[in-house]
This record gives sequence, C-alpha cells and structure tokens, in this order.
Amino acid sequence: MSQRPTIHHIPVCPFSQRLEILLALKGQSGAVDFSVVDITKPRDPALLAKTRGTTALPVLELPDGRILKESLVILRFFDEVFGDPVRRADPFEHAIENMLIAKEGPFTAAGYLFVMNQDRQRRDEFNERLLALYRDINGFLVEHNPDGTYLFDRFGVAEAVFTPMFMRFWFLDYYEEFDLPAGEDYDRVREWKAACLEHEAAQQVSFEEIVKNYYDYALGSGNGALAEGRSVSSFNFEPDWRNRPWPPRDKYETHASDAELGLV
Amino acid sequence: MSQRPTIHHIPVCPFSQRLEILLALKGQSGAVDFSVVDITKPRDPALLAKTRGTTALPVLELPDGRILKESLVILRFFDEVFGDPVRRADPFEHAIENMLIAKEGPFTAAGYLFVMNQDRQRRDEFNERLLALYRDINGFLVEHNPDGTYLFDRFGVAEAVFTPMFMRFWFLDYYEEFDLPAGEDYDRVREWKAACLEHEAAQQVSFEEIVKNYYDYALGSGNGALAEGRSVSSFNFEPDWRNRPWPPRDKYETHASDAELGLV
Repeated sequence: MSQRPTIHHIPVCPFSQRLEILLALKGQSGAVDFSVVDITKPRDPALLAKTRGTTALPVLELPDGRILKESLVILRFFDEVFGDPVRRADPFEHAIENMLIAKEGPFTAAGYLFVMNQDRQRRDEFNERLLALYRDINGFLVEHNPDGTYLFDRFGVAEAVFTPMFMRFWFLDYYEEFDLPAGEDYDRVREWKAACLEHEAAQQVSFEEIVKNYYDYALGSGNGALAEGRSVSSFNFEPDWRNRPWPPRDKYETHASDAELGLV
Repeated sequence: MSQRPTIHHIPVCPFSQRLEILLALKGQSGAVDFSVVDITKPRDPALLAKTRGTTALPVLELPDGRILKESLVILRFFDEVFGDPVRRADPFEHAIENMLIAKEGPFTAAGYLFVMNQDRQRRDEFNERLLALYRDINGFLVEHNPDGTYLFDRFGVAEAVFTPMFMRFWFLDYYEEFDLPAGEDYDRVREWKAACLEHEAAQQVSFEEIVKNYYDYALGSGNGALAEGRSVSSFNFEPDWRNRPWPPRDKYETHASDAELGLV
C-alpha cells in the first residue's frame, strides 16, 4: 500500500493491543499508524461518520477510506496481508487455535463482570466463575500440548488474543486479590499465562498503567463513564498515569476522589 | 483421509446445517459421515468421553480420533481441507465476510430469546430487538453490495452461517407472526434472506419440520427439555414430524398435550 493503514484506538484497550502484539510478532510494527481516540470525550463526528455511528474500537481505516471493524477480524486481516502468517499453517492446528480463541469472549466477560461487581457478597461467585474458565483452558492446553508452554511451539495467534486480557486482569490481582490456586487444575494455564505476560512482543502496557487506568471499572463504571462524585475519568490522559498515586485497593468501601487519584 | 471424518449432530440443528450447506456448496457432501444424536435422551457416554464432557454439538471426529468442536471452527476447517475454498480469496473481502459472520451470535440469541419468551407483554420488545439487528444487517449489505443479492457475487460462507438461522426463525413466523416490515430499512436484507432460503445447497430442512420440532422452544423449553405436563419432547424422532398435526400457533395461552401434538 502506498500509504499506511490507520488503526483508530484507545491506547490502553486490550482489543487494540492484540493488533500491536501481532504486528510486533511479524516484525511489522511500522506497517500501521495508530491514531489515539480519547474515550473520556465525545467521539469525533468525522470518525463516527467513517464507522457509520458505531463507537466500538479499534477501527481500521485503509488508505482508500475502506473501514474494517472487530478486533479479531482485523487481526486475521493483518495476518494475511503483512509478512509471514502467524496462524498455524496446518488446517487442524489452525482449528485448534480457533477453538481456544472461541473461549476468549466468555473469559473476557467473566473478568470484566468480576472487576465491575459492587456487591461484596457476590465476590466469591464471580471469582469461581472466572476460575472455572481458567480450569477449562487448563484442560484444553493439557489436551493439546501437555508438555509445552504455549498452545503450540511458540507464541501465536491465540496468545496474541489472550495476552491483553491476562494483562487487563491485573485489575483483579490488585482490586480483588485474585490468584490462581495451587494445583494441577491450574498449573498448565498458569505456565501459559506467565509465558504470555513475559513475551517481548506483548510489552505495550504495564501493571501500574492498568491498575490506575481501570480504577473506574473497579467502581462499576466502564467505557470512560464517570463514577459517582467524580468529574475526571481514570482513563484521562492528563495527568499521565505515571504521575498519579496508586488507587485504594478496597473497591467495595473506599471510593477515592479526583484529587486522591491525582486526576486534578 | 483413508476413512471419512464423522460429524456427531442433531439433524435439525442449525449449527450442523451450516456444515451440510458448506459441503453441498463445495460438492463434497459425501466427504463426511453424519452420526445422529438424539437430544431427547441422555448423551452416549462414549461420545461424552470423546468430547471431554461437553454436550454441545456438532462435534467433528477425525478417523484418527482427534476431535474438533464449535461449528464455525469446523466450518473453516472443512473449507480449508475439502475442495476449493468458499471463503473470499481477497483478504479484505474475507474480512468483510467475517464482520458479517460476527453479527450472527447476537442475531441468533435475539431470535431464540424471542421464541422462548412466555410473557405476552414483552412480545413487542423482543420483536423490536430482532428488527434492530435486521436493520443493522440491512445497512451492512447496502454498504458492501448495494445492488447485489448476496454479500458478494454468490452464496458464500456468510450465507452458509446465516441461512440455518433464517430457517429456524420460521418458528417466529409461525408462533409470533413475525414479518419484516415494508420499506428500505429492510429491503436489502429481505432480498438476501429470500435468496438464502431458496438456494439449492440449503434445502436440508423444511418450514413444517422446524415449526413442529421447535414447538417446545415456543413454550420456553430449549435443548430437548420437556414443557410442563408433557412426557415426550417435540424433538422426538418418533412419530416422524411428517405424521404429526401442526401445533397450535398461540404459544401464550394454549399448551398442547403430547396427544394433541401427535407425539403419543
């Protein structure tokens, strides 16, 4: 392409990070421009016109103006058009990869519902739901690659899909003291998760960045919405998250103010 | 492959029909054996062992015993291993096809929730939710192929995915008098749906078969569960649906007995 395509994205968004990881894996990080959208402000009408009214991100805009939406769709598109395919070449192995990717939707939903839950009485219920999905993934990895680290011999498409979620779920480590229990029900997925988190292609965000940016989710306010009594979103770009204090870990009793969060 | 792979399936299941449609499109209907599972009976332990406890169908069993689950995963696998690909060869067109396929999950959920709803007061709400999804698909088709019939120039993968749902939603025509309203908000998807329903590769089930088999869904009982006061599922293989009377159309007030449904 004569010009580069553009991804319109929220920098801390997991669905965008997938694409960054895949491009990094392919050595193609320079093939695409990333244009930042501020989730805390009304959406730019020019971008809304391009996306025909939908606000979901990321959105891919090709140099000729054509638009693609849905992160998994864009991921597969990038894998086909830039450099060597990361997807498994063998059709059966690719199907196995797709079966694991199909588990990501419920996994993501369980983690986000857990962090957004405001009822302490229901904490264990959300915790168990997420653990059940971890056990399912554990069984899947044991079935298909019992002695390996990744699903196959290297970090691939399934890892690019899940790693951003493992990183977002740092908000559960911090706000819910989430931890995978000891034992073989979790050992295989624990190893996979650790290897995913450490991979050099997946270092776009940090634990501190996630914990600070997602504080509003821990209060039940998603997608840039404001929690009660607050006037600045934890996703605000200014002040930079590096210059803010850590939020309180107790999400159920303590609601920090804009000032306590270093947002004003 | 020296032996044929086997699809374990429920004959009237839309997720299995997708695969039958794709194989028919590819002229490969004989490449796979179909093994019938009776949804009204406890699952065969041998099959449960193969699927590691999950009951969702269809399941693909390869001659060497390897297993694949998830109809869209199996669909893509079949498209890669049997005959010429049906998927669009161009990566961008394939992405467009995948964007439309990504709309199928919410579409299917809306139709099934509608038919299973038992509260007449909420009928219009469910109707409107489904219509909103039809309008969204209409807009998508207008955007990508305003003057055509299918998404591209012929019945393809997206059509193989949606057509079984259009056919299951005959239960809405019958039990909810569902009809797409007149007007350009629905004209493009109306044309698409009609062409899908008529396609020669997609004639595995009939209106009468769907209406009779899915009667229990119209009473709020899904997946072979029994409605109150009944002892035989409308999905029972015997007596054959051709030899049973049409169920009552009024799902809210009238609950037909086993005898009235011709099941005993």
